[in-house]
Amino acid sequence: MKQSELFSKTQRSFPKNEESVNAQLLLRAGYVEKLMAGVYSYLPLGLLVLRNIERIVREEMNALGAVEVLLPSLHPKENWQTTGRWKTMDDLYKLKDRGGREFALAGTHEEVIVPLLKKFVSSYKDLPLAVYQIQNKFRDELRAKSGLLRGREFLMKDLYSFHANENDMLQYYEKVKVAYRNIFSRVGLKAIETEASGGTFSDFSHEYQVLTEAGEDEIIYCAGGDYAANAEISQAKEGKQCDLGHGPLKKAKSIEVGNIFPLKDKYSKAFNLSFKDEKGKEHLVQMGCYGIGLGRLLGTIVEVHHDKGGIVWPSEVAPFQIHLLSLSGGEKAAKRAYEELQAKGIEVLFDDREASPGEKLTDADLLGIPLRLVSSEKTASSDSFEVKKRDEEKIELVKKKDLVSYLSRPI
Amino acid sequence: MKQSELFSKTQRSFPKNEESVNAQLLLRAGYVEKLMAGVYSYLPLGLLVLRNIERIVREEMNALGAVEVLLPSLHPKENWQTTGRWKTMDDLYKLKDRGGREFALAGTHEEVIVPLLKKFVSSYKDLPLAVYQIQNKFRDELRAKSGLLRGREFLMKDLYSFHANENDMLQYYEKVKVAYRNIFSRVGLKAIETEASGGTFSDFSHEYQVLTEAGEDEIIYCAGGDYAANAEISQAKEGKQCDLGHGPLKKAKSIEVGNIFPLKDKYSKAFNLSFKDEKGKEHLVQMGCYGIGLGRLLGTIVEVHHDKGGIVWPSEVAPFQIHLLSLSGGEKAAKRAYEELQAKGIEVLFDDREASPGEKLTDADLLGIPLRLVSSEKTASSDSFEVKKRDEEKIELVKKKDLVSYLSRPI
Repeated sequence: MKQSELFSKTQRSFPKNEESVNAQLLLRAGYVEKLMAGVYSYLPLGLLVLRNIERIVREEMNALGAVEVLLPSLHPKENWQTTGRWKTMDDLYKLKDRGGREFALAGTHEEVIVPLLKKFVSSYKDLPLAVYQIQNKFRDELRAKSGLLRGREFLMKDLYSFHANENDMLQYYEKVKVAYRNIFSRVGLKAIETEASGGTFSDFSHEYQVLTEAGEDEIIYCAGGDYAANAEISQAKEGKQCDLGHGPLKKAKSIEVGNIFPLKDKYSKAFNLSFKDEKGKEHLVQMGCYGIGLGRLLGTIVEVHHDKGGIVWPSEVAPFQIHLLSLSGGEKAAKRAYEELQAKGIEVLFDDREASPGEKLTDADLLGIPLRLVSSEKTASSDSFEVKKRDEEKIELVKKKDLVSYLSRPI
Repeated sequence: MKQSELFSKTQRSFPKNEESVNAQLLLRAGYVEKLMAGVYSYLPLGLLVLRNIERIVREEMNALGAVEVLLPSLHPKENWQTTGRWKTMDDLYKLKDRGGREFALAGTHEEVIVPLLKKFVSSYKDLPLAVYQIQNKFRDELRAKSGLLRGREFLMKDLYSFHANENDMLQYYEKVKVAYRNIFSRVGLKAIETEASGGTFSDFSHEYQVLTEAGEDEIIYCAGGDYAANAEISQAKEGKQCDLGHGPLKKAKSIEVGNIFPLKDKYSKAFNLSFKDEKGKEHLVQMGCYGIGLGRLLGTIVEVHHDKGGIVWPSEVAPFQIHLLSLSGGEKAAKRAYEELQAKGIEVLFDDREASPGEKLTDADLLGIPLRLVSSEKTASSDSFEVKKRDEEKIELVKKKDLVSYLSRPI
């Protein structure tokens, strides 16, 4: 993709009214644009990152044997009255149509997926089953000051699992933990599995917390990995010695990037989602639900992976793997390289803009693409390119004839 | 994919409160489920069809040089007041947050994309540019009785183009017409380009109308292709002779599957989206907008492509190309074929359910997958499979050893 053809330009100045690092960098780099607090538009490069995160999440959900669906955002009031959350969920957006009928805007989807499955689940033979979607959620957040970390509208992956008994549900719950660890690791995050409250969903839950000063949560945890709990519910206090000798428990700010809930029969009871066992006896279905906010994940990646120059994307989520810069005197060689790489099916972002070398190098740091390829007067004269990884200082010279094979290696 | 692992089962009976053919067939086949009038969930097979339509639309938009973005659904009231549509758009959903601030739910996205581009467009060098998204729209429809044809919530592709002058916009408008013809042709629809009113958008527009009794629109058209206009605005009447000798103009019911609008400066004026020309003189940006409702497109395909047995998917949108049925006596051969095809990367829907041959054949007709592969006692004894196209009566016998090469040909 040619950068000259991207309408989303980098911005020189820090955006006003944005305190969070993630929003500042994403706005300045032209990845997102703010419509209002907690509501962002994804610009072309930001959408590429979001799609990469989606792909990773989808692959891990499919590997769990979950099937994908797409549920609506506009929900009948009645479904939310059935679970009682029409009144108890403070951040539920409500609206009326012109006939006066009331609706909820999806804050979560138990109120839709459970009645939907009543049509298809009646026997133990229909269980277990797991269904997920990647779809918008809406939440009437009082404070939405953390950029993409706390959205009023945000894309979420929500997985729901349905089981004949609690034991089967808890076994699946453990499998989801593994899938979640895979997802966070692939997007470049170290997430700590943390005991937490269940909110309006369940008795308890597990959260995945990423340590960073930008976090709105606090966790108490053992550096050795023996214990982690949200500070809101932790029985153990900061400074208490870990029983297994890993020293004092620590307290730190963190971002919750995922949350899993053993719902048990809370929602199947509300809608009477039941099944007949081998003997014809009726039981309520046991459920789990499992969420990851994709926008928040993107924001968290930026909070964790940046330096003073800009974003440093982990490879699997980067919008491009290679950023080709055409500096003065190197234009011809850059153009030829771009065409050659395109022809070989190697996608690059090509900075072909009319701009100074300094501006291009600064923008490349801000954009944070893993590998930078520079064509300048100096490199053109030696039939080579400068290659630099975004997160290293070292600059290599690669001969033009070796370029394709060099770039075909894993970065 | 094994059909036994799909939770979305086919239904014997016709769904209640659904008059439209598209919703009846899609519900019975387990492609979609109804949450309420005009609001549907996509089940696994329905989502595969929707994704195919998305892919086709995306490919044609990218070929037009348009770049993809993702804009929010929750819009500030102020943006809609700026264009005046807060009051004039009857089907706009409105809501308040708990602080009393008012929002619109996106019925269209001019109110977001135009102010967004103010940040990036200032010079003639920034034009032309074209931006599209595939995102939900919400419309407070008084009547939503036609299944997926008229949604209160539906996925839409909306493209917006921005130009330095009207002539450039109108040239692009013609290019979009070509892309639209490609899209409708690829999804298996004959769409008639029809003159229409511009509604709240513009002075006039063009609609793409598909002739079918299920349509809520009426068009007056020449069978020779010389004239077509929405009956609402047509100057010519049914029965009038076509000037070029194609006989009398006809009147027929039709579904509008796409709509393109030469917006000119209506929205750029509202938000003062302007640019400086080569001489530094300020002008308003000229715009076009171009929509296709993906759910409506899916519903229209079903209205046009079905027979008394069920849906007959056009190949490019079908959820699978091949439906492998394991009938009694043919189970072993079917299972081996499934494994072999999977290993060769040939995706099939495998009906491995415990069900009677009659039920499986009836369901296969209902599901409408282009090619049916049957393994029964008879075919197993001759080491072959029965092959039948969904839209033909002819049944071929294909030897097991020839199966992979047979299926690797275009269907």
